[in-house]
Amino acid sequence: MTPDIHRIAVNTGGGDAPGLNAVIRAVVRSAEQHGWEVLGIKDGYNGLFEENGIVRLDRSAVRGITHLGGTIIGTTNRGDPLRWSVDNEDGSATFIDRSQEVIDTLATHEIDALIAIGGDGSLSIAQALFEKGLNVVGVPKTIDNDLAATNLTFGFLTAVETATDALDKLHSTAEAHERVMVVELMGRHAGWIAAAGGMAADGDNDIPILILFPEVPFERHRFMAAVKQKVKTYGYCSVVVSEGLRDHQGRFLSDQGLRDAFGHAQLGGVASVISTMVKDDLGLKYHYAVADYLQRSARHIASLTDVSQAYAVGQAAVELALRGKNSIMPSIVRTSNKPYRWRIGEAKLSRVANREKMMPASFITRDGFGITQRCRTYLEPLMKGEDYPPYRNGLPRYVRLKNTAVPKKLKTPFTL
Amino acid sequence: MTPDIHRIAVNTGGGDAPGLNAVIRAVVRSAEQHGWEVLGIKDGYNGLFEENGIVRLDRSAVRGITHLGGTIIGTTNRGDPLRWSVDNEDGSATFIDRSQEVIDTLATHEIDALIAIGGDGSLSIAQALFEKGLNVVGVPKTIDNDLAATNLTFGFLTAVETATDALDKLHSTAEAHERVMVVELMGRHAGWIAAAGGMAADGDNDIPILILFPEVPFERHRFMAAVKQKVKTYGYCSVVVSEGLRDHQGRFLSDQGLRDAFGHAQLGGVASVISTMVKDDLGLKYHYAVADYLQRSARHIASLTDVSQAYAVGQAAVELALRGKNSIMPSIVRTSNKPYRWRIGEAKLSRVANREKMMPASFITRDGFGITQRCRTYLEPLMKGEDYPPYRNGLPRYVRLKNTAVPKKLKTPFTL
Repeated sequence: MTPDIHRIAVNTGGGDAPGLNAVIRAVVRSAEQHGWEVLGIKDGYNGLFEENGIVRLDRSAVRGITHLGGTIIGTTNRGDPLRWSVDNEDGSATFIDRSQEVIDTLATHEIDALIAIGGDGSLSIAQALFEKGLNVVGVPKTIDNDLAATNLTFGFLTAVETATDALDKLHSTAEAHERVMVVELMGRHAGWIAAAGGMAADGDNDIPILILFPEVPFERHRFMAAVKQKVKTYGYCSVVVSEGLRDHQGRFLSDQGLRDAFGHAQLGGVASVISTMVKDDLGLKYHYAVADYLQRSARHIASLTDVSQAYAVGQAAVELALRGKNSIMPSIVRTSNKPYRWRIGEAKLSRVANREKMMPASFITRDGFGITQRCRTYLEPLMKGEDYPPYRNGLPRYVRLKNTAVPKKLKTPFTL
Repeated sequence: MTPDIHRIAVNTGGGDAPGLNAVIRAVVRSAEQHGWEVLGIKDGYNGLFEENGIVRLDRSAVRGITHLGGTIIGTTNRGDPLRWSVDNEDGSATFIDRSQEVIDTLATHEIDALIAIGGDGSLSIAQALFEKGLNVVGVPKTIDNDLAATNLTFGFLTAVETATDALDKLHSTAEAHERVMVVELMGRHAGWIAAAGGMAADGDNDIPILILFPEVPFERHRFMAAVKQKVKTYGYCSVVVSEGLRDHQGRFLSDQGLRDAFGHAQLGGVASVISTMVKDDLGLKYHYAVADYLQRSARHIASLTDVSQAYAVGQAAVELALRGKNSIMPSIVRTSNKPYRWRIGEAKLSRVANREKMMPASFITRDGFGITQRCRTYLEPLMKGEDYPPYRNGLPRYVRLKNTAVPKKLKTPFTL
């Protein structure tokens, strides 16, 4: 990559994270300081095809977007340009490689570098495009916190705030009602968000929380014994369950062989599965909540650290481009626990792609249902500070992208 | 009731509501101003039996409790003292009337009046105890807002904040992902909370929201046509569904004849039922969230009006007792929409017990999936103002009751 940059593009991939718009805002503001123009590619790479979603992002376009959930430029829907799905007439699908089209369309619009914001999958695509000649800087994003080569990822902390807040409040309800309260949290492979649920209990707050991590194979009898013990001691119990909980055979608990009236398999959601087991095995009453996308988009209790770090990695991505770096991403490096200090580092995209950072075994208690002091030491400093959104008439103030499209430039359209 | 009061008792019944502790605090502080002592009865009426849960509530006991979810004195678990369930040896249950025991134990502790906080069921019990000679003042509570004789009930507004916040954020996620986003909200009989979900869309925010009210029988074909239309126009759709949604035969949608591997009936939760239908009928991707108890206990985005009204009805209950009123409750009377003004009124408990206030037909649009301007006029002024809880180290600050038990006084224990 040459530092001689005039125009950059930015896109986002995968699920939402509260800081996405903060990154976009940081990229636009930093780029403008260097006199660069920024184009947003809508819906991942989809906006490039037929040039249907290439929008001008300037300072006014990104004003007030930080507090908005979602991402103002959309994200990947049909997915990977390297494996683009085309429907055949017989109903089957063929996968074609449209990466050259991506590279050519970016070149036509005189884009000197792409800043690709995303998780494992999106950064792998960015790395593949780099190998085909595109200048790319990645920005690590996932609420699951399971990206390699960075101490944490933005989005995670706000999911954590949603989780701990829910746990804290649900617990007080559970106590008043003598029930088992189950909360399903995100985390398909790694239990970082679930672990944070455990932070609601500490030396000051002796409250009964059992955590079901995706890293720990589920054993029904052991779990029921633990619930029984907690209910005996405290009169109630809160259960945090990761959506990705599996048994010893690696099967998701959410696939319990449920069949509807027509015999179709039915994925019930792991919270309802666990709740039903508690009722069947122990005869206890339960309530369950499924936080689902509320964790991704819950900007109303965003973590201040989360938003600050999102903004910082956005800025850093622009600076890496300015310094002529390529196939790289800014990472978050922790330099101190007390007081919490962090700085921006850098990591090769190839070190990040297709890897997952699971919870270390030393973060999970020996019984498999709790977090250790070491895990607390990691999480504790991350959870300080709130960043409330502006409210108007009691509703979160909602800003939308003006969507100023850039004039099309391709003389001959790509045809499939 | 005689105004000559020295000691009052307070208890809470039914599900949680964010303002419960604000009411308790108001009762204690107001009573102390009149030189009265306040005893809290734990777990509804259960704390009276064997005098196992009668606690002294003074100013220091109620400090900092307003921001806590749940209720510091617990709520009814085994339920109704008039129909107290006793397990027989053969596994069956017999119901006995323990109301005299309630009245006698309160008399032994020299309680001059009981302030009973609760919804329809709890207030009906309070009214029955009054008819048997107890001095009672009720305090209306339900997050569902379906109590008769009051313009609204505390708890509702905070549930509404949770709902609209979720909707607003989910919508932005839906837009970025081209999905159908389903959110299950509370409301077993009345769709007030679901209606509030519709407030996320207005003239400024043209976003596609379909509401499924318990008041409107579900018709699968009509609903699917509406979803299809919204997705065609907007590219996505948000769906708000009340837990109490029913079909024309009055059957809950959540009971869909699902059977597990052993043939047991399985209540799936209405959100997953609706989501599966959307996938089956329209082939659209979906995500669903179940807010469940998060709506009851979400003190982190409590409505300021909600907490103010909770405090006011608590104060008013004490004043009604002071004025010698009996079998009565303070109500909330709206005196102006713009600016929103309200005052405390009074209503006979007999007017409230065993009635439900459904959404008026004029609040629901003709297609059955939206709210009218009239409904907006009702809801709009209610949603202004936030009341954030104190945070410490990024976690909501958590206060617990000291649980100072009162010495037992009964010379001969009640035996069953």
